[in-house]
Amino acid sequence: MTNNPVLVEALRGGVAESLHRGALAIVDADGAVHTALGDIERAVFARSAVKVLQALPLVESGAADTLGLSDEELALTCASHNGEPAHARTSAAMLAKAGVDTQALECGAHWPYLDSAVREMASRGEVPCALHNNCSGKHAGFVCLGSAMAGGRDLRGFLSGYVQAEHPLMREVTAALQAVTGHDLAHTAVGTDGCSIPTYAVPLYKLAHAFARVGSGAGLRPGHARAAQRLRRAVAAAPFMVAGSGRFDTRVMERLGERVFCKVGAEGVYCAALPEQGLGVAIKIDDGNNARACEVAMAAVIGALVRLDDDERSFIGTLSDLALTNWNGIEVGRLRATTALPRHAAG
Amino acid sequence: MTNNPVLVEALRGGVAESLHRGALAIVDADGAVHTALGDIERAVFARSAVKVLQALPLVESGAADTLGLSDEELALTCASHNGEPAHARTSAAMLAKAGVDTQALECGAHWPYLDSAVREMASRGEVPCALHNNCSGKHAGFVCLGSAMAGGRDLRGFLSGYVQAEHPLMREVTAALQAVTGHDLAHTAVGTDGCSIPTYAVPLYKLAHAFARVGSGAGLRPGHARAAQRLRRAVAAAPFMVAGSGRFDTRVMERLGERVFCKVGAEGVYCAALPEQGLGVAIKIDDGNNARACEVAMAAVIGALVRLDDDERSFIGTLSDLALTNWNGIEVGRLRATTALPRHAAG
Repeated sequence: MTNNPVLVEALRGGVAESLHRGALAIVDADGAVHTALGDIERAVFARSAVKVLQALPLVESGAADTLGLSDEELALTCASHNGEPAHARTSAAMLAKAGVDTQALECGAHWPYLDSAVREMASRGEVPCALHNNCSGKHAGFVCLGSAMAGGRDLRGFLSGYVQAEHPLMREVTAALQAVTGHDLAHTAVGTDGCSIPTYAVPLYKLAHAFARVGSGAGLRPGHARAAQRLRRAVAAAPFMVAGSGRFDTRVMERLGERVFCKVGAEGVYCAALPEQGLGVAIKIDDGNNARACEVAMAAVIGALVRLDDDERSFIGTLSDLALTNWNGIEVGRLRATTALPRHAAG
Repeated sequence: MTNNPVLVEALRGGVAESLHRGALAIVDADGAVHTALGDIERAVFARSAVKVLQALPLVESGAADTLGLSDEELALTCASHNGEPAHARTSAAMLAKAGVDTQALECGAHWPYLDSAVREMASRGEVPCALHNNCSGKHAGFVCLGSAMAGGRDLRGFLSGYVQAEHPLMREVTAALQAVTGHDLAHTAVGTDGCSIPTYAVPLYKLAHAFARVGSGAGLRPGHARAAQRLRRAVAAAPFMVAGSGRFDTRVMERLGERVFCKVGAEGVYCAALPEQGLGVAIKIDDGNNARACEVAMAAVIGALVRLDDDERSFIGTLSDLALTNWNGIEVGRLRATTALPRHAAG
């Protein structure tokens, strides 16, 4: 049993109430390990943290250009979005460009992540469809890739069962994941993700290495390097699409632009590229907590490593050490990164 | 730093994806430790797991009888409820018996815990008030206690600031908590709970001891013993009130009646009385996860220790080892208690 360090703690009344253990790998594009906390060799299901890698074939294949996908649409292919109206609308627009409709999506439906979006839908008497699934943009991107792969065949017929590992479309997606992570996905643990596509277990340091490559292009074949740069720029140009109102990824990239590409995954996985530093980051929180543990840890890493002005440093500080308030708005504690995490060397 | 054992694991693709560490204390009414896993001496904020202890003065004082509180209303004083219409209505009825209205509650407002209740309110154009706060029954119980304590004074005036530790009402509540846990609350860490009342840190084994006393009455003063029995019976008679639709506490007590009194608290705290075994149980999940970690661990403890027929054992088994399904309803993994937890000795 691994015994990873405590990366994040929740304080109440001045004492630690709850603790989040985890592992952190920071690696450069050559594969050199910059920071290792905990067991970075353990293979973890990469989940939604690697959506940008799964979107590479869409761009490399030329399908994105053929269909004229916008920055918003490309950003949505990398997203775990809130299911806000703009997210659902943009997914629908991508499907329309491919000549199909919501019925083509195999991700399943769920109510939006954003509570206020749920209430607004309920107040209008609406129910969710696959467009509201947080993965609908990734799946719409798969559908667009499929429109290039189907050739003369009927697209709906070609797409049927695309979430299965052995489908030609999913083979392309998995091949990109394998190429960039450098991990043999045919001989690793495989699970089924929330949206029904396969998710592969990849050692944490290899995920960090993959994101260093995504940030710099180094070590990637030219088509992947160009595609990664295009996707990163699309997300920097349209950060609302990658998550949504109030979300960490959106807030950070709205503020820091192309200096950070970060992406949350389910079960406490978080990956980021820090292009200016030539580094990739991968975090796995042992207990699977996303919102409070992963984000706080990632904020600490960004604060330690990324070039920031004073205002930006203050902003990131509010994400790595934040007030916990109760139903009356009273501050009852703090949520903060521990000293195990990298710290900014005050200049 | 404590290094508690893994009590619950989430599996995907046959491998452990996430882990929940924690501590478990099972203690009898004499204070003898039956089971100890992890650091059971560490003081943890008891949060909402001890609402039954905080309701003892309401019953012991005679206020519950004077106001004619029903089983439903007494069960609600012990509740972290879903905010369903019946919960809000019952809280309102308690306030009316005391001669005040929602304005007397100092717990703050939040949308119901139950998603479908949120959507139904939104569809009707409603917004939440303090009656929907999961703690509204506890607070309505405080108000009813206040009606006995206020004497000839104006009740609203007497109640003002009742959530503060030094308010005469809260002193009564804290005194009951101290009497039953046997812990000196004047010299322990204190925080502010979600509903603004103080929450005290109590060693885990003392919480288990307190619940053994609640289950048997042994070691309690007569007034507390009678009040504890009345509250346990009220919850067994009206288990919907203590939580609500689909919730673990409600489902378990609907099925097992007075054989189990269990109560979730925030941040991964869970307490239970097992009266037939003369045991009390207290769990703290390190990472603060309630719904999946605490409940699975508590189900394993109940399955190991409580007298169950085959159907009941099967039912409890579905709570200690359960399928994780995705948005398409496909089973993608399991959530299960680890072998660190007590196991049923097959007869």
